[in-house]
This record gives sequence, C-alpha cells and structure tokens, in this order.
Amino acid sequence: MDRIFKIFFLNKSTIFCRHYSHSSILNILKTAPLGQQISVQGWIKSLRKQKELTFIEINDGSTCKNLQITLPSNLSKNITVGASISSKGLVKQSPKGQLEISAEDFTLIGECDISKGYPFAPRKQYEPEYVRENMHFRPRTRLFSSVLRIRHAATLEIHNYLDSIGYFNIHTPLITSNDCEGAGETFKIEPDSEKLLKSMAKENQPLHSAYFNKKAYLTVSGQLHLETVAQALNKVYCFAPTFRAENSKSRFHLSEFYMLELEQAFLNNLDDLLKVAEDLVKHVIKALLDRHLDDLQVCTNGKIDHLLINKPFIRISYLEAQQILSTKLNKSSLKGIGKEHELALTNYFEGVPVFVINWPENLKAFYMKQIPENNVAAFDLLASGVGEIAGGSLREDNFEKLKSRLPINNSEFDWYLDLRKFGYVPTGGFGLGFERFVQFILGIENIKDCIPFPRWPHNCKL
Amino acid sequence: MDRIFKIFFLNKSTIFCRHYSHSSILNILKTAPLGQQISVQGWIKSLRKQKELTFIEINDGSTCKNLQITLPSNLSKNITVGASISSKGLVKQSPKGQLEISAEDFTLIGECDISKGYPFAPRKQYEPEYVRENMHFRPRTRLFSSVLRIRHAATLEIHNYLDSIGYFNIHTPLITSNDCEGAGETFKIEPDSEKLLKSMAKENQPLHSAYFNKKAYLTVSGQLHLETVAQALNKVYCFAPTFRAENSKSRFHLSEFYMLELEQAFLNNLDDLLKVAEDLVKHVIKALLDRHLDDLQVCTNGKIDHLLINKPFIRISYLEAQQILSTKLNKSSLKGIGKEHELALTNYFEGVPVFVINWPENLKAFYMKQIPENNVAAFDLLASGVGEIAGGSLREDNFEKLKSRLPINNSEFDWYLDLRKFGYVPTGGFGLGFERFVQFILGIENIKDCIPFPRWPHNCKL
Repeated sequence: MDRIFKIFFLNKSTIFCRHYSHSSILNILKTAPLGQQISVQGWIKSLRKQKELTFIEINDGSTCKNLQITLPSNLSKNITVGASISSKGLVKQSPKGQLEISAEDFTLIGECDISKGYPFAPRKQYEPEYVRENMHFRPRTRLFSSVLRIRHAATLEIHNYLDSIGYFNIHTPLITSNDCEGAGETFKIEPDSEKLLKSMAKENQPLHSAYFNKKAYLTVSGQLHLETVAQALNKVYCFAPTFRAENSKSRFHLSEFYMLELEQAFLNNLDDLLKVAEDLVKHVIKALLDRHLDDLQVCTNGKIDHLLINKPFIRISYLEAQQILSTKLNKSSLKGIGKEHELALTNYFEGVPVFVINWPENLKAFYMKQIPENNVAAFDLLASGVGEIAGGSLREDNFEKLKSRLPINNSEFDWYLDLRKFGYVPTGGFGLGFERFVQFILGIENIKDCIPFPRWPHNCKL
Repeated sequence: MDRIFKIFFLNKSTIFCRHYSHSSILNILKTAPLGQQISVQGWIKSLRKQKELTFIEINDGSTCKNLQITLPSNLSKNITVGASISSKGLVKQSPKGQLEISAEDFTLIGECDISKGYPFAPRKQYEPEYVRENMHFRPRTRLFSSVLRIRHAATLEIHNYLDSIGYFNIHTPLITSNDCEGAGETFKIEPDSEKLLKSMAKENQPLHSAYFNKKAYLTVSGQLHLETVAQALNKVYCFAPTFRAENSKSRFHLSEFYMLELEQAFLNNLDDLLKVAEDLVKHVIKALLDRHLDDLQVCTNGKIDHLLINKPFIRISYLEAQQILSTKLNKSSLKGIGKEHELALTNYFEGVPVFVINWPENLKAFYMKQIPENNVAAFDLLASGVGEIAGGSLREDNFEKLKSRLPINNSEFDWYLDLRKFGYVPTGGFGLGFERFVQFILGIENIKDCIPFPRWPHNCKL
C-alpha cells in the first residue's frame, strides 16, 4: 500500500506541471502575454525563408487563426509545410502589430515530405472532391477544420438552448425493430459471425432473427421512441445519427446523417410547434454569429447574411405553395413539392426560410394528425439553397384513426397504440437534418463536405 | 402575398400567448407564486379522496417532485392515478407549509383505466424486470424518470466540461468498413431491400458489398476516426452509440451502448491521460451533486457517497494488481483481470476508483503504445460495483511497430498508417462507457435500467 500511494502522490504533482505547460493558440491570442516566454506546438501552415529569419505560421486546431513564429534561418533547414513542431520563445508584437513568437529553437515532432505522398501542396487550392478523396487528411485543411469547429459549436448550442427551455436529451435506440417512416429504406443488421448466429438460433429460426429474436434495423427516426418518453417527461429531444438505404448520390443526401428530433407533450396547435422550430434555428445562428464569427467567415468566404435572424419566417399552406409554384413560378407540380420546387419557393421569398403547412395526408406519414379536407397538421421548413431542413407534425391522438393508418397490420405497433390508451396527452414534434442545417448556414455546395466522414452509395471510406 | 403575411402576423401573436400559458412544476416550485392563479398540467401520481376535498399529486416530468392539487370531491369522480389532466387554481401554502394549488375544476385529457391493461397499479412497488418488460410505460415510473433526467444532466455536463477545456465534439461515423478492436464482435449492415441491392451490384459483386462497394459494419469504437481528427484539431471527442454483437446477458453488458471517447494530440505521457479521465469523472459527479441532488436521491434511495469526489483515484500497475489479487485477496488470475477481480480490487481500495496501468501487450489492442517489458502504456479504470468503466492508452507512434501489429494484413488500414507518415504527433485517449458510468454513480443493479431502450441478446423491444 505504501508504495502505491507514493506512486500516486508523485504522479499527481508531475501531472499538474505537465498539463499546463503548453498554451493553445486560441488562449495566446486571447491573453496576449507580451514579453513572456511561452511554448507552443502545432502544424506548419506556411513557411517563408529570408536570409536571417524564417517566418513560420503554425496552427494547433484550437482556432482558425495561425500564430507566427520567427526562427533564425540557419536552424530551419529540414522543416516543411505540414510538419508538426513545438517551440519556445518570447511573445512580441510584429511590425504590423500582430502577436508573434520570437523563437531561438524548435523541435520537429513529425515530418511531412510531400514527395512521399502527402496530398496537399503548400499554397495550392483544391476542389472539394479532391479534398474529400483524401478524407483522413481533410481535417487539416483550413476550410474543413472550420466546418468541424462550427459543427461542434452548433451542436453545443442546440443542447444548451433546449436544456434552457426545459427539454431533456433522450438517447433513443439506433437498433430498432420498427421502420418509423414505413418507407422501406432501412438497413438491416445482424452479427457478422455466422458461428454466433448458429449458436443462438432456436429451432427453425431464420439466422437473421437469431440474435434479437426478430429482424432488426438501423433507425430512420427516433420519433416513436421520443413520443413514448414525452408521455412522461413532456419535453424531450434526441440528437443522433439516422440512416437511409437509398441510392441517391445527390448533393443533399447522405446514407448516415445527424438529426435533431424533438417532441413535446400538451401541444395541440401547429403554430406552437412552428415557433419552437423557428426559435431554435434563429437561436443557433445568432449564437454562431455572436461567438464563432471567425470560423463562420472562413466557411462562407465572408458572405454571411446577418439579417436572416431578424426576419420572421414565412408561413404558407401546401395549397398556397402550389398556387405560387404554378401561377408565379411556372412550375406546376401534380403531386408533392420536389427539391426544385423547394429551392424556387425560398428564392421567391428572397431567401427567408419558409414553413409549408397543412399537407395532403396521402403525402405524409401515418402518425400525423388528420385535420379537415383530408389534410394533416404537418410542416416542412424550407431553407435557401438547400430546401427542406426540417419536417414535423402534430401526432394523431385518435386511437381508431391511428390504428387504421398503421403501415403494417401486425402487433409490432401495439405499444405505440397503447400510448393512446393510458394517460395520453397530445404531442407534436419535428426533425431537423443537422448536415442540411449546416449546409444552409455555411452555404456549402455539397452536404458531404458538412460531415466529418460522409457515407453515401458506393462510398464508405475509413 | 398580402394574405400570406396576414396569416403570419396573426399566428405570431397567438403563438406568443399560448406558449407561455402553462408553467412547469419545476418553475412553480422555484418561483412559488403564492396568491396567483395559474394553470398546470401533468399526470396523476396519487389520489386521496376525502369527504369534501380530493388531494391529487401531479407530475409533469420537469422534476421528480409532485405538485398537490386540491379539488372539490364532487368533481373528482372519474379520475384515476395515471390519467393526464390540466387544471387552474390559486397557489397557496398547505397546512404543512408546502405549495399547493386550490383548484375549482379540471380537464381530463387522457384517462387511465387499469382494468384495460395499464401495467402499474397505484401504491405498488414492482421489480425492475417487470418494469423493464413494460418498456413503453417505464419512463412514467418515479425511479426511471429520475434516471432519464440524470442521463440528460450528465450528458450535458460532459459536453460543456469538455468544451470548456478545449475539446471539440466530432461526429465519428457509426457505419464503418473497419473493426477497430479486431475482436470480431461486429454487426454487419446492408440495405433490407434486395431489389435495391440487385440494382446497385456491379458484375460478380456479392450483394452484401453492393451498397458501399465493401462490407460495412456498425462501429465498435470511434477511436481511429478521432485520431484522424486529433491530427488537426488536437483535442477531440465523440459521444455516440457503439455496438457489440456478443451473446452476453450479464447485468453489465448491452448490445448498443453510449460511449464517450476522447483523443488528445501532443500527449506522450500516460499520467496526463489519467488526469484527464479522473478530472472528467469527478467533474460530472460534482455537477450532479451540486445541481441535480433531488433526482440523485430518488435514484440512490438517498445513499450517495458525497466524499468520492474528494479522494484521489488509486493508481496501480497490472503487476501490482495481480499481486494484490493473489496475496491479499486469494484470487489468483493467470491471464487478465476478470469482472470478479475488478470488483474485488475496488472493494480492496474501499470503493475508491482504481486505475490499473501498464498492461501486457498480448492482453490489449494493436494500436496501443509499446513500452519496456512487453507492456503497453494503457489503463483500465475500475469503479466500485461495476468494474471497468473506462479504458485508454497512448497510441503507437512507431510506424514499423504499428504495421507489424495490425489485425489484418491488407490495405484497409493504409489510411491509419498514413497518419504516422505526415506531420504526426503522439496522441492518447480513452473511452468511457456511459451506461456503466451511470450505473456506478446511481448504484443501479442492472445496466439495462440505465438506458431508455436497452438492446441485448434476444431483446429488441420497440
């Protein structure tokens, strides 16, 4: 025992010293410790050798901003852009008034020799497709590292905002035995090991059902599970990946994407739900503008619409949308509103997001609440350049109506019907496609450049 | 256009009024609006009829605390425990000094008739197995609704704490083409639609590879992807479900569970990593004690170890752990440390969490950094009553050593090796099993009662 505790106390003091030995570039730029000796570490982003001094810009991932280090040129022979280094030096102001480190030495941590196959050359611009091909190095590009920080910031804002207005984060399951949307675009799952399946299968049981005693799928939506919890906790949400097994390679589709889904009990008015969605979207954009402007500017090339958050979102019915499409935009649509129509509608309203409400029931899912004229109390939220970013509805609270509209006529939905029998309260909710939301905010052409490791048909890199 | 905008402005005002018309019980108890008329809504948790007055306790999910409503008994005929109601009344203090609502009327929203099959009778205690069987009603039980709120709170604390010390949340993919651990306990995935697969398959391509052009699996860990991003953003984490296709029905295992995984660059000392893990665990527990004591008390029956967060975690080597097991605890183990040993070790150290470090390399994964005496710089963190809750390591930074230890000898890991070639910096990280962490904090017997919708062999309800 003595020995053990000695080890511990020894460790404790050494840990404490080490942990704070390096400052992040974000902190250095914030605190501007002029005249102090500090150590920094990062990856070399640019390199300019002059006779006496070499000017090195490094980045450590904590911010999109680089920090300049000056180094005697006789020491900088074997360093290249892309290499990782650590260095110590005096913090001072450059002739142009910027913070820089005057270093006397440096340590090369990992070299980066482009002749050995590193895909990015210094001072060169690459097309997004090429960068995406080199997915394991993509986070090292300036643009994509900013996208990742914006994703992080937007995620955190969503969690904290919903917490502040009383919603609980519920971890709905990704493995499920039901297909919420009934669209048949599911991935099925089973153990890879046939040996395991054979050892678990009961007599006459097909192998694909052996593990869970039934066929299991990857979720397409956490909504039905959220409804279950909303009948106890009232205001709930989930924020997790969902999956679609469809053969679409469009710039708006992914096979695995993040979705924020929210459900609220004691809610029987569609307007109340639209307000929740509008407030959420505006809150996140405002927070990014207030607190993450640097990364936003990198992502958008400085073209940010600051005014968006001050404009009320448009509200039109499905019928009105169809009228505008046919009479004003010369785009008649017999059924539904396609991507082309969505983009035309947001253009028509000069970039302001558009709620399209009150949809024909045959265009929407079985659980949506019926209202007069064969409509359902549902909405799509359309955003400029992207189209649908969110969709939601009030849920059918009438037991018999719901039962008659179930996609399959078996016992798989008994539990969902059960909710309506015992202490039921009306609920409503929506799902917001997170990558489309990011694509909308940042004005990024292809959704595959809004997620760290995109999966789409014929593509599952890493 | 006129019509549209009129609709919008009309909506806006009505929304505003409705949205704030009901107060949550949490807010009512916080603000204590004595003498005011307010409206409340919730589910009836208990009911006591006296001659003149009926005493109703309702809960709306916002807190574990109920609110008492008194109602003239002649009006309360058709209400039962479990039903949902809304009511208006005067806020006053009960003779015992508690806040209550003196209501003159109420609206029954959804009835709850136990004779029609509702599984929970008033004032009855049920075994966890029975409650779990009725999974769609489980969030309505007092204990489990507190577990859900604690999960929410712990999740939010993790996100905010890691953000505050500079980590970025990276959404690593759940569909992957590699098996990080190499243990073969993966689920494979493919589209359920054979028609889709046939339409996508190239000549001579097996159907299971048609969608992604390769076999695809559910992730067992986001670590390799995190390492990729850590080589650009430095401090990163993910917090998402992971999956194990194993046939274990123990009270410590799930087929789908949440894992917090963290990776940090410029890290070459195991002690630094232990400090990150210890600080994180203590921070979350402290935050729950500070801000969520009510729910903690419900979950633990009031038995909370407040002192845990003041004690330094134990640090022992694998060798020392084996010595303690064989000489002090009479539990010799030829290979590894099993669940029984983990529990014995935490008992030996009187419930203080134990880091076991420096493991034989043949017991650990291929990517862990080799250190002298055929060990790797790895740790397991053992917690009282649960055993391993976290495991981590420094990562092998030597290209040739790593290459020789890859689990499969093909090109699938080329990208992972590539990271070591170009601007590599040493990294380390760990994974914390979130349900086991919750199980440890709350002292819950079975891990299936720590997650909203548990999946385990032969079980995939809802």
